[in-house]
Amino acid sequence: MAKKLWGGRFNKKTDPLVEKFTKSNDCEIAEYDILGSIAHAEILKKCGYLTPVEANKLLVALSQIGAKRFKKDDSCEDVHTQIQNMVQEKVGDLALKLHTARSRNDQVVFATKLYCKTHIKLCEKFIDGLVSAIAKLAQKNKKVIIPGFTHLQHAQPVYLKDYFQVYIEMLERDKKRLEYISDNMTITLGAGALAGTPIPASNYNIAASKYVKELKKAGLKDLNIVTSNSLDAVSDRDFIIEFINALSILAMHLSRLAEDLIIWSTKEFDFVEIDEAFCTGSSLMPQKKNPDALELIRGNAGRLYGNLMSVLTMMKGLPLTYNRDMQLDKEPLFDSFEKVSLELKVLEGLIKTLKFNKSKIEEQLRDESLYATDMVYYLVDKKVPFKEAHAIVGRLVKYSINKGIAIQKMSQGDLKKFSGNFVKKDLINLFDPKISVKSKKSVKRK
Amino acid sequence: MAKKLWGGRFNKKTDPLVEKFTKSNDCEIAEYDILGSIAHAEILKKCGYLTPVEANKLLVALSQIGAKRFKKDDSCEDVHTQIQNMVQEKVGDLALKLHTARSRNDQVVFATKLYCKTHIKLCEKFIDGLVSAIAKLAQKNKKVIIPGFTHLQHAQPVYLKDYFQVYIEMLERDKKRLEYISDNMTITLGAGALAGTPIPASNYNIAASKYVKELKKAGLKDLNIVTSNSLDAVSDRDFIIEFINALSILAMHLSRLAEDLIIWSTKEFDFVEIDEAFCTGSSLMPQKKNPDALELIRGNAGRLYGNLMSVLTMMKGLPLTYNRDMQLDKEPLFDSFEKVSLELKVLEGLIKTLKFNKSKIEEQLRDESLYATDMVYYLVDKKVPFKEAHAIVGRLVKYSINKGIAIQKMSQGDLKKFSGNFVKKDLINLFDPKISVKSKKSVKRK
Amino acid sequence: MAKKLWGGRFNKKTDPLVEKFTKSNDCEIAEYDILGSIAHAEILKKCGYLTPVEANKLLVALSQIGAKRFKKDDSCEDVHTQIQNMVQEKVGDLALKLHTARSRNDQVVFATKLYCKTHIKLCEKFIDGLVSAIAKLAQKNKKVIIPGFTHLQHAQPVYLKDYFQVYIEMLERDKKRLEYISDNMTITLGAGALAGTPIPASNYNIAASKYVKELKKAGLKDLNIVTSNSLDAVSDRDFIIEFINALSILAMHLSRLAEDLIIWSTKEFDFVEIDEAFCTGSSLMPQKKNPDALELIRGNAGRLYGNLMSVLTMMKGLPLTYNRDMQLDKEPLFDSFEKVSLELKVLEGLIKTLKFNKSKIEEQLRDESLYATDMVYYLVDKKVPFKEAHAIVGRLVKYSINKGIAIQKMSQGDLKKFSGNFVKKDLINLFDPKISVKSKKSVKRK
Amino acid sequence: MAKKLWGGRFNKKTDPLVEKFTKSNDCEIAEYDILGSIAHAEILKKCGYLTPVEANKLLVALSQIGAKRFKKDDSCEDVHTQIQNMVQEKVGDLALKLHTARSRNDQVVFATKLYCKTHIKLCEKFIDGLVSAIAKLAQKNKKVIIPGFTHLQHAQPVYLKDYFQVYIEMLERDKKRLEYISDNMTITLGAGALAGTPIPASNYNIAASKYVKELKKAGLKDLNIVTSNSLDAVSDRDFIIEFINALSILAMHLSRLAEDLIIWSTKEFDFVEIDEAFCTGSSLMPQKKNPDALELIRGNAGRLYGNLMSVLTMMKGLPLTYNRDMQLDKEPLFDSFEKVSLELKVLEGLIKTLKFNKSKIEEQLRDESLYATDMVYYLVDKKVPFKEAHAIVGRLVKYSINKGIAIQKMSQGDLKKFSGNFVKKDLINLFDPKISVKSKKSVKRK
Repeated sequence: MAKKLWGGRFNKKTDPLVEKFTKSNDCEIAEYDILGSIAHAEILKKCGYLTPVEANKLLVALSQIGAKRFKKDDSCEDVHTQIQNMVQEKVGDLALKLHTARSRNDQVVFATKLYCKTHIKLCEKFIDGLVSAIAKLAQKNKKVIIPGFTHLQHAQPVYLKDYFQVYIEMLERDKKRLEYISDNMTITLGAGALAGTPIPASNYNIAASKYVKELKKAGLKDLNIVTSNSLDAVSDRDFIIEFINALSILAMHLSRLAEDLIIWSTKEFDFVEIDEAFCTGSSLMPQKKNPDALELIRGNAGRLYGNLMSVLTMMKGLPLTYNRDMQLDKEPLFDSFEKVSLELKVLEGLIKTLKFNKSKIEEQLRDESLYATDMVYYLVDKKVPFKEAHAIVGRLVKYSINKGIAIQKMSQGDLKKFSGNFVKKDLINLFDPKISVKSKKSVKRK
Repeated sequence: MAKKLWGGRFNKKTDPLVEKFTKSNDCEIAEYDILGSIAHAEILKKCGYLTPVEANKLLVALSQIGAKRFKKDDSCEDVHTQIQNMVQEKVGDLALKLHTARSRNDQVVFATKLYCKTHIKLCEKFIDGLVSAIAKLAQKNKKVIIPGFTHLQHAQPVYLKDYFQVYIEMLERDKKRLEYISDNMTITLGAGALAGTPIPASNYNIAASKYVKELKKAGLKDLNIVTSNSLDAVSDRDFIIEFINALSILAMHLSRLAEDLIIWSTKEFDFVEIDEAFCTGSSLMPQKKNPDALELIRGNAGRLYGNLMSVLTMMKGLPLTYNRDMQLDKEPLFDSFEKVSLELKVLEGLIKTLKFNKSKIEEQLRDESLYATDMVYYLVDKKVPFKEAHAIVGRLVKYSINKGIAIQKMSQGDLKKFSGNFVKKDLINLFDPKISVKSKKSVKRK
Repeated sequence: MAKKLWGGRFNKKTDPLVEKFTKSNDCEIAEYDILGSIAHAEILKKCGYLTPVEANKLLVALSQIGAKRFKKDDSCEDVHTQIQNMVQEKVGDLALKLHTARSRNDQVVFATKLYCKTHIKLCEKFIDGLVSAIAKLAQKNKKVIIPGFTHLQHAQPVYLKDYFQVYIEMLERDKKRLEYISDNMTITLGAGALAGTPIPASNYNIAASKYVKELKKAGLKDLNIVTSNSLDAVSDRDFIIEFINALSILAMHLSRLAEDLIIWSTKEFDFVEIDEAFCTGSSLMPQKKNPDALELIRGNAGRLYGNLMSVLTMMKGLPLTYNRDMQLDKEPLFDSFEKVSLELKVLEGLIKTLKFNKSKIEEQLRDESLYATDMVYYLVDKKVPFKEAHAIVGRLVKYSINKGIAIQKMSQGDLKKFSGNFVKKDLINLFDPKISVKSKKSVKRK
Repeated sequence: MAKKLWGGRFNKKTDPLVEKFTKSNDCEIAEYDILGSIAHAEILKKCGYLTPVEANKLLVALSQIGAKRFKKDDSCEDVHTQIQNMVQEKVGDLALKLHTARSRNDQVVFATKLYCKTHIKLCEKFIDGLVSAIAKLAQKNKKVIIPGFTHLQHAQPVYLKDYFQVYIEMLERDKKRLEYISDNMTITLGAGALAGTPIPASNYNIAASKYVKELKKAGLKDLNIVTSNSLDAVSDRDFIIEFINALSILAMHLSRLAEDLIIWSTKEFDFVEIDEAFCTGSSLMPQKKNPDALELIRGNAGRLYGNLMSVLTMMKGLPLTYNRDMQLDKEPLFDSFEKVSLELKVLEGLIKTLKFNKSKIEEQLRDESLYATDMVYYLVDKKVPFKEAHAIVGRLVKYSINKGIAIQKMSQGDLKKFSGNFVKKDLINLFDPKISVKSKKSVKRK
């Protein structure tokens, strides 16, 4: 039977259903809680609650626990309790001193923030992986021009590399956003349950012993971890909402990439071929090669939003300071990280093996309507006011569609009916994707 | 290595990350998929795809698999694949015939609908348990009167039993809503992947063999399970959204009950005492007895809403028919059921052991403002127009607060200044909770 | 300056910002509040609070107010206050009696429920309009076969009419769901603020005078409007959540139809032509004909979900009974109705004018992979176990793709390499969409 | 009849319902669109599309339009169209040149980003106002000690000023977050519809004419507004999601403050008195003084979350580049700003007039359980291991509650039964809120 970190005033045992219901699914923060316990042991030593010998015994024990893969003991209320119990197994009653002047309200924030910082770093690494794969794909196909889409309709020819660069822009914004969130996450100890502790603030500036070095590696830049408002320290979950929100925006970006590729890999578009390793088949239809990974990436956006909504709603109208509701921040956090990081890694592989069907793309580039805007600019260069030029070309396009005659096949006489400025031999040159993309000069690529 | 239900056309193996990413967390529907396979075997027998001997072998194998606690084999893509493989282990290549004219697109809907129907029944049972506990509590305290609240401010005295009856009303609505959802869930087979199968529709009216009987028990009222639109059958997830939505409303109701009890169990209110078995303590503050179970019930509303949002968003803008995104309906469904059913059971226990602090409640009933509306009715009975009476009593209350004089302590002369209709000896009788509640006659309790 | 329905006890005027902030945007329920006031006047007459002459004056005044288009007076807190003031302008101080034994907490529920009932009816009418347009379109194209999609990939040939029938199925479910919600919405009066009123319950069974007849027309089936739990009556907002949820599911359905049509109207698919009256152009690109209406229908699903989330979250953890937060139910409700009803009407027009490009569709039907499942059934009919047949055809399809040879062009010798059961002249017949759809017999159309 | 910015290729007029349905509710960005048009006119002049005289006429016209309060013309599709039409009314056909090489896809992003930047500044100002009011209130009550709460249960005594400082910490984080969002919002022109324009990039570095100066004031730091990826420019809505998310977190913070004050102003707590100017009354119960403004602040959190969900869901799975769905970003944006800014202003006034009921607070401070943790530290100082001390005090508290004897009233003998370290005369000193708060030394206030 697992011991609890409380209970003296209780006459009764907790109802078994309540034990199950209130259990925290918090295994992911165990290693950070151990680091927090190490920091706390150092602090207790510094201020005299522990002798150096006692502190050392605890530090060794904690370090040993931390060195092994942590397995959650399901009979424990949470990892804080389990770690405390594990220390006790190793050092006996000395462990009873470790909990001096600390509270799980404070511990959980410390550990969760370290989790966030380290996992933001991981996210950034996975983003880099995908960005690099996209950049290589774009570079490899740097001369490919595709029909650009607005409203999923043919708009104007654009470079494929510029299309993919959009996703790099998104991902770079995501990374920057994550960095900001991590940089502004202040890690502290010493809030106690809510009111602070009797340990003087100066002790929360812990020296970098060999044990504490791990903390720096785990994302703690500054070892001055004193709190400036203990009530805020235990009440705040902004950092979790910010992280999940950033992951939601990231998931939204990936859902757009997924959608583009799903549409481009239809039989009708046939612009790309997704490698078989990233597809699955059908149990009934033997011909099927379905873009399942992309579909799940698209669908997971909903999951991420749900996680965000879950935590935002949970925090709505909570009185100060800590309330148990806040325990429900963890599953959505872990799940959001897991889903998005897997998406990034899957997409990296998928992008690396993506192939373009250039003949199909070129076929679509023959659509004359893609060059309508270029015809407008042609007229504008001949001093036709823009909106008038727009109307002229609009009528020309309509005529072409209604009569089923390509503009390039129209006689000079036909063209003149729309504008005296049209010169057939010049006009014909416009229907060239290369000329079209080169005529756009307003963009200054980074 | 687990076999797949597809693969002939594939040259490559699935990327291991993709295998992990696309795996379905669908263990909960295994037993219903086995029932679906039993039904399918009967159908195959009926239309001659299986001989009676073959069908029997498969039915025995399926029945044996279903009889044991199902354990998900993590190397399998989903439970459909695993069950197919398990059958093959038992009956060899005969299993290869079982998948004739069926598709996972169809299977998963069949199994998930049966899951929903059986779990709606469970929910209803748990609701009944909580309703019964509340009803007993209300009955036990049927004479207790409390200050009724609007805006969390004292409004008028009401019966405690009527307060608790509100939650019964909510729960009865929840139950009715769930029943409606179950009743309108049409269970079918035969959609194939999307286009139907070559098996004639009449065969989907399966006779009730000993194996099929289980289906009836599991919630299938009608064994005519022929589909009327195969494309809709595999595209539709309304039933999941409806179930999660009903559970979200239910969770919202429980969050309100939780909030009422959390507030009532503060030191300041002190109206109720929550049994220790439903509270937990603090690792720092030894005196604490916190209503953690109630707080988690309050917070879980966010979780439920997140699950709802997750599935709704996933379904947004999905083209017909089946898309892999839809696989993401399952975790939110299972989680919603699990959370709400646990909440119902925990609350049942908590309500059964709830105690009222009647002296504290009575103290609050002495608040004269609770009887202000009764004073208005007193004047209205003396023919003062309602809004005028309202203004008079408003001024009287203001005077009482500003001067710090209880209305009951005012002289007849003082009272007359507000209205000539006030007769002190009559007025004084109004400040009695029993008289107040009895004077309300507009409600006809069920 | 507008009068308020309260104020006697207040020394100070409301802060102007607070007046602005707390104002209810509730104009849409004005006509139903007038009907509620008519019912209330009848009740007051019945129980003697009003003489027949007084009641008649009030009824005439209310009826006159109701007959005109209601314009919200922005200086009023809400429509209840404004209507009360309008009555006073007409009948003077007699109006002061109208508010006898009633509370806005009760009034607003009465009026909003009537709003819901009448607007559910409207929704049903708009659904019928769209269903009828889709049915006609399906009927008109009843012989058209299209490639059916799963995962947006070619799956099997299906009837276009069956594809559109899916949306009819969805819409019929939506309608049924709305009907259920309306049927279960019990309209009552007499809850007062929370505790009931001194008017005996029997008086809430109002006779059908000429004024009350309007109530029946507005959706009140039963004129016995007595409440069974007054605390629940003012605390409950389930009916609003249910309505918005049903509209959200409906909006999700429409977003899927929109997505299908957006994809089908791309240059690459080119299956449908959307009438110009339902498209818009570009300010820069003269050729553009964009499916803007469909895109907004797709995007509005998010809006509907947001509205649902808004009300669900607002209700989370609200203590009993009425809290002002609940006022925030109205804007999401009105907005959800307005958006969805407009979507239904726009889609009705769009569907009526939709044209199919049959030659493009037929071109896609030549894709041999669409008939792969039929080849499997061909082998199954020759006693090849299903999963083996599936693997054989999978290999055949792979070979066909890799070698670039159509299956129909392969020699009998080539085919035999995959299965001894293949007979070329029989096999060739399978590649016919008509034969394919006719071979599916498992569906029994309604 | 309002003119459109497109139409040449169209044979038919837009369906009136579609006109209504697709209309953009975008009045709030009109002034920023005018600034964008001014910038665009300068650019057209710089690159020779407009002569200086032409440019000047357009600039004067735009400036005149901008100087007046903008009123949306409901017959116009959007403000871009209306402004173009207004210019045409002033300068005739010259206006037709203004739309040269621009697209509403680009314009709307420019204007909306300027809207965001200016409104973020406004938010920051309103935050400052509330922070200042809270700081003054905290300063004024700097010696007041209150029972600190966790789980809404008495935890430990804390300074009231520290409690309120939590909200300042939240608000400062909100402000910082908003600043980051604004700083990272890059404003550009020149994306055209998606592909860029023929105007060379250098021209998008516009000189600061008298007209352009307004742009700087409106939040444009750098007048080099050249775009680095035109496809991203028109596809990106991250900035809107980020702004709404930041406002959602802010609204969540305010909902917590609201909840604290709602609970503290109950009759049972009675810690604070909310000024009448921030309360409203009841139409039935004359005594009522309800904290309606606070309740609406609490409830509006749901509204904000709904707005966030609305935009996130709308963006899910949108293919590149611009889609009309994106128009639906505006109403949630404007609404979120309006709601939160009003909340901040209302709260500023409410906080300024808030009064504390010190006697009621002091009464609660007499609760001995608030000092239990201090007793633990007392034992720890006497070398009792922490967890043992925790258990001892837990048992003491339980004994005190069960027997109904205050700890301060227990004899030395009774105390010794729990721990030999208890010395009654020392212990008694612990039950003093001032001593309790001063003994907490771990916090270093900023």
